[in-house]
Amino acid sequence: MRAFVMEGIGRVAVKDKPVPEPGPTDAVVRTTAALICTSDCHTVRGAIGDRHDLTLGHESVGIVYRLGSAVTGFREGQRVAVNAITPCYVCDNCLRGYPSQCTQPLGGWKFANVRDGAMAEYFLVNQAMANLAPIPDAVPDDRAVYACDMMSTGFMAAEHANIPLGGSVAVFGGGPVGLMAVQGAKLLGAGEVIAVETVPARQTLARRFGADAIVDFAKVDPVAEIRRRTGGVGVDASIEALGAEETFMNCIRATRPGGTISNVGYHGAGDYVRIPRLDWGVGMNDTTIRTGLCPGGRERMSRLLRFLETGRVDPTPMTTHRFPFADVEAAFRLMDRKEDGIIKPLIEFAR
Amino acid sequence: MRAFVMEGIGRVAVKDKPVPEPGPTDAVVRTTAALICTSDCHTVRGAIGDRHDLTLGHESVGIVYRLGSAVTGFREGQRVAVNAITPCYVCDNCLRGYPSQCTQPLGGWKFANVRDGAMAEYFLVNQAMANLAPIPDAVPDDRAVYACDMMSTGFMAAEHANIPLGGSVAVFGGGPVGLMAVQGAKLLGAGEVIAVETVPARQTLARRFGADAIVDFAKVDPVAEIRRRTGGVGVDASIEALGAEETFMNCIRATRPGGTISNVGYHGAGDYVRIPRLDWGVGMNDTTIRTGLCPGGRERMSRLLRFLETGRVDPTPMTTHRFPFADVEAAFRLMDRKEDGIIKPLIEFAR
Amino acid sequence: MRAFVMEGIGRVAVKDKPVPEPGPTDAVVRTTAALICTSDCHTVRGAIGDRHDLTLGHESVGIVYRLGSAVTGFREGQRVAVNAITPCYVCDNCLRGYPSQCTQPLGGWKFANVRDGAMAEYFLVNQAMANLAPIPDAVPDDRAVYACDMMSTGFMAAEHANIPLGGSVAVFGGGPVGLMAVQGAKLLGAGEVIAVETVPARQTLARRFGADAIVDFAKVDPVAEIRRRTGGVGVDASIEALGAEETFMNCIRATRPGGTISNVGYHGAGDYVRIPRLDWGVGMNDTTIRTGLCPGGRERMSRLLRFLETGRVDPTPMTTHRFPFADVEAAFRLMDRKEDGIIKPLIEFAR
Amino acid sequence: MRAFVMEGIGRVAVKDKPVPEPGPTDAVVRTTAALICTSDCHTVRGAIGDRHDLTLGHESVGIVYRLGSAVTGFREGQRVAVNAITPCYVCDNCLRGYPSQCTQPLGGWKFANVRDGAMAEYFLVNQAMANLAPIPDAVPDDRAVYACDMMSTGFMAAEHANIPLGGSVAVFGGGPVGLMAVQGAKLLGAGEVIAVETVPARQTLARRFGADAIVDFAKVDPVAEIRRRTGGVGVDASIEALGAEETFMNCIRATRPGGTISNVGYHGAGDYVRIPRLDWGVGMNDTTIRTGLCPGGRERMSRLLRFLETGRVDPTPMTTHRFPFADVEAAFRLMDRKEDGIIKPLIEFAR
Repeated sequence: MRAFVMEGIGRVAVKDKPVPEPGPTDAVVRTTAALICTSDCHTVRGAIGDRHDLTLGHESVGIVYRLGSAVTGFREGQRVAVNAITPCYVCDNCLRGYPSQCTQPLGGWKFANVRDGAMAEYFLVNQAMANLAPIPDAVPDDRAVYACDMMSTGFMAAEHANIPLGGSVAVFGGGPVGLMAVQGAKLLGAGEVIAVETVPARQTLARRFGADAIVDFAKVDPVAEIRRRTGGVGVDASIEALGAEETFMNCIRATRPGGTISNVGYHGAGDYVRIPRLDWGVGMNDTTIRTGLCPGGRERMSRLLRFLETGRVDPTPMTTHRFPFADVEAAFRLMDRKEDGIIKPLIEFAR
Repeated sequence: MRAFVMEGIGRVAVKDKPVPEPGPTDAVVRTTAALICTSDCHTVRGAIGDRHDLTLGHESVGIVYRLGSAVTGFREGQRVAVNAITPCYVCDNCLRGYPSQCTQPLGGWKFANVRDGAMAEYFLVNQAMANLAPIPDAVPDDRAVYACDMMSTGFMAAEHANIPLGGSVAVFGGGPVGLMAVQGAKLLGAGEVIAVETVPARQTLARRFGADAIVDFAKVDPVAEIRRRTGGVGVDASIEALGAEETFMNCIRATRPGGTISNVGYHGAGDYVRIPRLDWGVGMNDTTIRTGLCPGGRERMSRLLRFLETGRVDPTPMTTHRFPFADVEAAFRLMDRKEDGIIKPLIEFAR
Repeated sequence: MRAFVMEGIGRVAVKDKPVPEPGPTDAVVRTTAALICTSDCHTVRGAIGDRHDLTLGHESVGIVYRLGSAVTGFREGQRVAVNAITPCYVCDNCLRGYPSQCTQPLGGWKFANVRDGAMAEYFLVNQAMANLAPIPDAVPDDRAVYACDMMSTGFMAAEHANIPLGGSVAVFGGGPVGLMAVQGAKLLGAGEVIAVETVPARQTLARRFGADAIVDFAKVDPVAEIRRRTGGVGVDASIEALGAEETFMNCIRATRPGGTISNVGYHGAGDYVRIPRLDWGVGMNDTTIRTGLCPGGRERMSRLLRFLETGRVDPTPMTTHRFPFADVEAAFRLMDRKEDGIIKPLIEFAR
Repeated sequence: MRAFVMEGIGRVAVKDKPVPEPGPTDAVVRTTAALICTSDCHTVRGAIGDRHDLTLGHESVGIVYRLGSAVTGFREGQRVAVNAITPCYVCDNCLRGYPSQCTQPLGGWKFANVRDGAMAEYFLVNQAMANLAPIPDAVPDDRAVYACDMMSTGFMAAEHANIPLGGSVAVFGGGPVGLMAVQGAKLLGAGEVIAVETVPARQTLARRFGADAIVDFAKVDPVAEIRRRTGGVGVDASIEALGAEETFMNCIRATRPGGTISNVGYHGAGDYVRIPRLDWGVGMNDTTIRTGLCPGGRERMSRLLRFLETGRVDPTPMTTHRFPFADVEAAFRLMDRKEDGIIKPLIEFAR
């Protein structure tokens, strides 16, 4: 089979690899559609260290090709979505209720990290009974694929934000995760969602996904503007969906006492991420800073897919580009350079 | 009446002031016993800015002297404890469930901050119906006075820590709040409480209040030692009870993914408090950083006083010194210099 | 002033009463608009015992007429909404976080219960600083009045239901509270809201407020139908919005293990409300049965009013009838008999 | 091997069976110690229907005898405890966070229900990686065996009770689960634990496990007495640890508004369990009724075993009788008849 791999830091290629063999609790899926994620770009630049001929990708859907001997409840030929995070569900951290931290920090993240990823004609899924999610008939593959990471991560950001019904939320960062955080905050009953973003196309999408107001940080001080809009007190919750220290600090500055800062951005630079001391109430203002990593698992996936089935959520306006798998390298480069107004490139596999 | 005041930054004195007059919802209490808090020392050094002839103190118990016209449910002559934090209970932040942030960040803290404190022969209590707590007959004043701040703050640190039953907790800092956090963690079902402290007398008290292990940070790297004791994974929760950046960073380093860092220390220095990025799982390790300020209110006070009534908690071993109110300046200086092994000095008022 | 009173069991009238005088912490409001609630009808029939010339009503908005001497933060002439429940916020139950249970079970319910209600030209509001909620300019009175009870109660039903994002909810009863529970479930991220109702006009409103499916209990067994729609397992949460034992039992039968039954219906008959033992998993199925009473307070009201201000929620299609206050008796009789397709009658007061 | 089986309703015997063979994710344990549970007696009487030669028992510890091919992280010869409940951890209900409801209501309960139990010389454990819990060296088998059900179930009762720090709890029923609920409430910071029990030996144990007061329901009306002890308002939480309708109703009657009724008793009789309507606040008193079934899993077991390791909990005073496995029938009959002051009989297996 063909697989899109990281040859080493800074180098990608499409290569031949054998179709994976499932162990007793695994499954192998034949890929039909996938999305490229900016974190793949980070990986190729060396963010998690070097890797050699590791298959990239973690947002893929497809058809069950083979099932391990101990897997029940699924059948070959079934359409399935697989979350970016594939926990074992039997280790201590999984049993504690933190499957994204399976066995170790961020350990649920196996695709394109400790194991071949899902940007290949076939990919292996560990603990298949928990990690394969059937796709409803009414949901096409190019829509279901958004449940794998974008919806799950963005919605988690909103779930962690502990938004009071009718409360106010600021979402910093209008990339695909931030946009889905906007959508998630709206789904969870926020009364006012403020999106902080400067790119016009992303502002437009933020409004489409439910933002009540846009704050353009290139034009105004976002913290001052958020305070102004909230009668001087700040928002009930803020969401960091970028992974930048300044943005994180602005979240703390913009959040009222008793509020929550939900961090979903990957902080990739520096030894430290600073908390502004006074805005943090000298450590006594009853705020919560919560972090998280894309929650996986069939049961959650089925709830996300239901939103797609009923049409209540439609993330496909984020699909700015489509490529056949044969052109995945070109797609990757476009994503890496963030050119041509790209938000999410969809990779389509031949039937 | 006589009151112990801050004349200005660096200067304290005992002065005459008129006995306060209660407004409709206030009460005035005749003081019987009080404790000096290190935060008074910070205040006199200028931590919250200058103050002129402001009465100090926020840990006092006494006898109801006068009640406002709209106050019901209490009677003059009744023994009462008053929490350091006296919220209004009717503003937005109080109604949201964050009374310690009454009207503004840390705004429940009124004594010796925005109003005369409680280290005087008489002191005024706002919103008396919510802020006066009757002291059970079996609890003497020199014991009840610990409910005003030390128990409420230390126990809150443990409540915010979200400790799983039988879980592990590291408490950084063995001052009186840290010691009460140890006691609180034990009360809340921790399976292993690790106190990080180097002063032998405080180590002894930590054991007395329930620590299963002591880590002497002057002898070992506390993070390495905590990891070693927890099979390499870190504790379920850590409590910052000192207010130092290094300690805060160690809390993050010592806490496993999915765990909680409960900050109760007052961070008094620097523009920023840093989070170590990698130990924070690059912002994705499912941890929670929670801050807070001593919760007040009669109902909570009554639950704290119950522990004193039944003897399940006895904080009085922390009373290392006793002074008559006439000698409060000497007591304050001793506390300020942390001399003579002082932990908490009790101030006794003439009957 | 004129007031609509219960003369005794079964008898109502409009009578003259003096305009109330505010105590130090009270306010008096001049009424502009009000809704009649079915619970007023229950009260007149004797549900809470006899009352003599007690003013009815608990869903009113108006203009601040006078403020008590200790009330700050409001001004006379200001437009305000007042929740049906007006807690003191300083008693034990309020301090515990259960203000609707102020001082005693259901004790936050003061209007038309232990004190004159709000269906009069003027009405008194206790603890005014917490219980007066300014109405945004953009929200007319006939819309704001829905925040007083219908939205707060219906949304609470959904908040108590602990709905997982994308989860399934069955709402039993399509009266105004049930309809607002449908709206609340949708606001809080339910993936599938099933309304159980037989009256066509109410079914239509349920769809308008967000129901994905209607189950007509007159045509099908609602439990069987709910199970069928949920793959045999039942819903994640069910809401009892009627106050009938059979409906409550159906909630238990229709809810999957680990789910929540949120009761908001007033159970007015019989000594007992039965739980079907086997459907309750013989007491071991990890379910939660939660009850509640309309949460009040300015802060929550401001969040509810925000939904009206932005237009995200529009409850006014429930206003099936309008009457001048002079005709309140006729309106009451229509509501009592549930004639003419009545859902909510709005009472308008002369300017 | 020898196994203690239910031949049919009302009939038990010790029989020969083959030693079980582990599937890929299973383990087989050689038993060293076990406890008999009253629920085994219920089963033999037909509570869950008829069974033929089904091995009884679900509270056993032992030594890993064989491991399935896909099991890692354990070794043969290792001492392990296995919880009564052995979920798969990969089905929908497990992924939702309710593993005791694995695949269906109460479905985590597999031993002696849908599969051979653990009162045999060897027993099979499904999903071994999650369900085998290593026993610390310092904890002998006759102590560790209490973690399998009694501690886990009793402590869960307290965890579900949502006890405020220093709050009051009434535990109805002083059998082994009730006694462990008393211990659990104490561990979780209850300020006053009231045990409702009439048998003197159980009263004594209740005091030993932390009860502050005993209410003898044979001498006084327990609800009236609980109200009297709590200033007329009732307890913050009550625990039903018996499984009787009258006791359940008393829990509701004894619990204050906003409080929690935690049901852990198995309700074995009648079509309905009644809620007293008025004491339930006509369905509006902000109470919670929570049910549950013994939580399993290695991670939780390790936290329970830690209490045994440090000696903070010692359940062995409940071991009133000891028998060799050869005499298991006699032990069972004694337990069934509740003769000779029996609380828990320990069954010891030959080495």
